[in-house]
Amino acid sequence: MNPLFGEFIGTALLVLLGNGVVANVILKGTKGHNSGLIVIAFGWAMAVFVGVFSVAAISGAHLNPAVTVALAVAGKFAWADAPGYIAAQMLGGMAGALLMWLIYRDHFDHTDCADTKLAVFCTGPAIRSTGGNLLSEVLATFVLVFAILSMVAPKVSLGAMDALPVALLVLGIGVSLGGTTGYAMSPARDLAPRIMHAILPIKGKRDSDWRYSWVPVIGSLLGATLAAVAHSVA
Amino acid sequence: MNPLFGEFIGTALLVLLGNGVVANVILKGTKGHNSGLIVIAFGWAMAVFVGVFSVAAISGAHLNPAVTVALAVAGKFAWADAPGYIAAQMLGGMAGALLMWLIYRDHFDHTDCADTKLAVFCTGPAIRSTGGNLLSEVLATFVLVFAILSMVAPKVSLGAMDALPVALLVLGIGVSLGGTTGYAMSPARDLAPRIMHAILPIKGKRDSDWRYSWVPVIGSLLGATLAAVAHSVA
Amino acid sequence: MNPLFGEFIGTALLVLLGNGVVANVILKGTKGHNSGLIVIAFGWAMAVFVGVFSVAAISGAHLNPAVTVALAVAGKFAWADAPGYIAAQMLGGMAGALLMWLIYRDHFDHTDCADTKLAVFCTGPAIRSTGGNLLSEVLATFVLVFAILSMVAPKVSLGAMDALPVALLVLGIGVSLGGTTGYAMSPARDLAPRIMHAILPIKGKRDSDWRYSWVPVIGSLLGATLAAVAHSVA
Amino acid sequence: MNPLFGEFIGTALLVLLGNGVVANVILKGTKGHNSGLIVIAFGWAMAVFVGVFSVAAISGAHLNPAVTVALAVAGKFAWADAPGYIAAQMLGGMAGALLMWLIYRDHFDHTDCADTKLAVFCTGPAIRSTGGNLLSEVLATFVLVFAILSMVAPKVSLGAMDALPVALLVLGIGVSLGGTTGYAMSPARDLAPRIMHAILPIKGKRDSDWRYSWVPVIGSLLGATLAAVAHSVA
Repeated sequence: MNPLFGEFIGTALLVLLGNGVVANVILKGTKGHNSGLIVIAFGWAMAVFVGVFSVAAISGAHLNPAVTVALAVAGKFAWADAPGYIAAQMLGGMAGALLMWLIYRDHFDHTDCADTKLAVFCTGPAIRSTGGNLLSEVLATFVLVFAILSMVAPKVSLGAMDALPVALLVLGIGVSLGGTTGYAMSPARDLAPRIMHAILPIKGKRDSDWRYSWVPVIGSLLGATLAAVAHSVA
Repeated sequence: MNPLFGEFIGTALLVLLGNGVVANVILKGTKGHNSGLIVIAFGWAMAVFVGVFSVAAISGAHLNPAVTVALAVAGKFAWADAPGYIAAQMLGGMAGALLMWLIYRDHFDHTDCADTKLAVFCTGPAIRSTGGNLLSEVLATFVLVFAILSMVAPKVSLGAMDALPVALLVLGIGVSLGGTTGYAMSPARDLAPRIMHAILPIKGKRDSDWRYSWVPVIGSLLGATLAAVAHSVA
Repeated sequence: MNPLFGEFIGTALLVLLGNGVVANVILKGTKGHNSGLIVIAFGWAMAVFVGVFSVAAISGAHLNPAVTVALAVAGKFAWADAPGYIAAQMLGGMAGALLMWLIYRDHFDHTDCADTKLAVFCTGPAIRSTGGNLLSEVLATFVLVFAILSMVAPKVSLGAMDALPVALLVLGIGVSLGGTTGYAMSPARDLAPRIMHAILPIKGKRDSDWRYSWVPVIGSLLGATLAAVAHSVA
Repeated sequence: MNPLFGEFIGTALLVLLGNGVVANVILKGTKGHNSGLIVIAFGWAMAVFVGVFSVAAISGAHLNPAVTVALAVAGKFAWADAPGYIAAQMLGGMAGALLMWLIYRDHFDHTDCADTKLAVFCTGPAIRSTGGNLLSEVLATFVLVFAILSMVAPKVSLGAMDALPVALLVLGIGVSLGGTTGYAMSPARDLAPRIMHAILPIKGKRDSDWRYSWVPVIGSLLGATLAAVAHSVA
C-alpha cells in the first residue's frame, strides 16, 4: 500500500474515533452523554492506538503534520516527502470528521448549543488567553514529540509495537495537560475537522472560531520543532 | 480441542462478561449500578480480551459471524467452514446470555423497567432512525474488521498476543462510535442474546424488539464485508 | 526465596491493595471517597498485577487457595504441597488486611456505618439469596480459573509475563460478574480478612457476618474445581 | 546523554504531568474539573510511564530519591553517584512544577481556594495525624520499592520495558493506598514542587505547609530503605 494512503487511512481512523468520543460525551441523547473526561481521554488514546496500529507498517504512522515536521527536523524523514504526508494527513482528518458527522447526525440535530457542536470537531480554550493557550499547545506538543523521538530511536518512525506506548502517552498528556486548551497538538486533528465544520451543512451551527484556529496549528508545529531540536542537542 | 468448541466457549465467555457488565451497570440494586459508560466500555473490552485469550490457540478466536465472513471474503478462511463457526458462535452467545441471566436473576426481579431488562441482552438505538442506525453499525464494524485484518496479516486469524490489541480496539470503538446504537457489531453478541431474551421466563419482560433486530445483523455483516474488500484493494 | 514466603508476600500485597481500594472508596474522609466502581475494579486488578508480578518467579503466584486446588486437580501441582501453600495464602491475606487497617485507621474511626467497615474487609451480597449468591461465586471463579488454565498451559503456574493478562481478567470479571456478590473468588481474599475483622479492635464494628462467610469459600473452591475438570475434559 | 540530564528530564516530565493532572481536576474552569480520582490515578501512572520510558536508556530512570537510596542500599547503585542523581531529580521536580504552573496560570488565577492551589503542587493528609500519615507514606513507598526491586532483578535499574509495569504499580498504589496522604512516595514529587509553591508568585497563595513537609520525605526514604533491606533478606 502507498504510504500516503496509509497516512490518509490512519489519520481518518484517528479523527473518526477522536471526534467520535467527543460527540458521544457532549452531544445530546447519546449513550455516553456526560460520561466525563476519563472517557474522552481514553477515547483519544485508543484513537491513536488504532490509527498507529493499522498503518504503522505502511507509512510509519506519523498521522500528524507536527510529527512529520519534527522527524524531518531530526533528520529522520526527507523534507521532500513532507508536503505529501501533510496533505494526506489533512485529507484524512477531514474524512474522519465527515464520517463522525454522518454517524452522529441525528444527535447533532438534537443538540441545541452551537458551541457544543463546534467542540465536537475542534478544540477551543477553557479560558481565552492567547499567550497561555499558545504555551499550552507548545508544551503539550513538546512532551508528545520529545517522548515519541525517544520511543522511535534508533528507528526512523513508529512501528506497530509503538502503538500502545504512544497511546498511553496521549492518555497521559490528555488528562494532565489537556485542561486548558483540549490538547490539539496537531493541525490534522484540529484544523482539518474545523474546515469540515465550516463546509458541512450542520443545522444551527455557529462560525468555526477562525480567530482561535491558528493557535493549535502554530503551537503544535512550534512545540514539535523545539522538541526535535532539544532531542538532538541532548 | 475442537475449533467449534473453542468458538462456542470463547463466544460464551464474551457474551457472559459483556452482557454481565451491562447488567451490573443498569439493573437495580447491583454493586455497579449507575457506574457509567467507562465501566461498560472496559467491560466489553475485557470480555473480548478474555474470550480471545482463552480460545485463540484453539479456533483462531473469530467469536463473531461478521469476523468469520470477513476472513472468508479475504481468502483467509474456508467458506465451507463458515456455517459451523457461525453456528458455534450463535450457540455460544446464547449460552453466555443464559449464564448472565442466572447470575443476575435476583436483580432482574428487582428491576421494574422492561426496556432496561431488554437492554442487558441486546442493543437498541439511542435515536431510532433506520438509515442512521444502520450506518452506525456498518461503520463501527468496518473499523473493527479493517483494524483486525491489519492486525492478523500476514497470519490468518487472531493469536493470544492479539487479545490485548483487539480489546483496546473494542474499547476505542465503544467509547467513540457506540454512542448511537451501542456498537453491536456482531450477530452473536446481539441476535443470540436477543433470542434468549425471547425464550427465557424473565419476569415483566417486554417484546424483544424484533423490528430493530435486523439492523445489527445486516449492519455488521455489511460492514465486515466492506472492510475485507477495502483491505484487499488497499 | 522460599515459595511459601513468596505466597505469603504476594497474597499480603494482593489483599493490602485490594482491601485498600475499597477503604479508599467507601470510608469517610478519604481522597477517593465515592470515586466509584471503576476505581474499585482497577484497584483489585492492579492488586493482582502487583502480587503476581512480585512473586511469580518465586512461587508461581497462586495467591488463592482456589487456584492452588484447581492446579492440583489439573495435575499441575502436587497435592502434598497444597496445605502449605493455602496456609501461606491465608496468613498473607490476614497480614494484608492488618496493614490496610493500620493505614486507614483514622478513616475507620471517622466512619459511622458498621456495615461499611465490614465491607472494606470482605464481600457481602447485594441481594441476600443463598442459591443465587453461591452461583455467582461459582461462575465467577469458574471463569477466572478456566481462563488462567488456558493462560498457563503448557506451563504449570503463572510467570511474571502473566501478571497483566490475569489482572485484566480480574478487571473484566469484576465489572461484569461482580455486581451481585462482589467477586470474592478466593478464601484468602474473603475469609482471611474476615477473620482479621473479627480479631482487630475496630471501633464500632458489627459482627463479621459469619452466616454468609461460607459462600465465597465453598463457591470459589467449587468453581475452581469445576473449571479444572472442564478444562481437562475439553 | 548524561545520566544526570536524563534524571532531570525524566523527573521534570513526571512532575509536569503529575502536578498537571491534579491542576486539571481541582482548579476552576479547566476541562477536567471535578473529573475524579480515576483521572488523577491514571494521570500519575502515565506520568511515571512517560518519565521512565523517555529516559530509562539514559539514566536507568530512578526519578525519585527514595528509589536511588533503595538501589544504593541494595548494592545496585554506587553511593558516590547518589548525591548527583538526587540533585538532578530535585531540580527536575522543580522544573516540572514550574512548567505546570505556566500552563495552568490562568486557572490558578480563577481559583479562590488557597488550599486547592497548594494541593496542585504537593500532598497533604486527608486527616492530619503524624503517626498515621507517616505510616501511610512508609508503607506505600515500601510497596512501590519492594515491587520495583522484584521488577529490576537481576538488572540494576529500570529499562524502557519496565515503564508499563511500574506505571501500573503506581496506578494500583494510588487508588489503594493513596486515600490517606495522597501517595507522595518521593521527595522529588513532593518537596521539590512544594519549594516551587513557596518561590513562585502565585496569586492568593497560602503558606507551603512546611509543618507537614517532612512527612513525605522521611516516610518515603524510610519506606524505601526498609524495602531494600526486606528484599535482600528475603
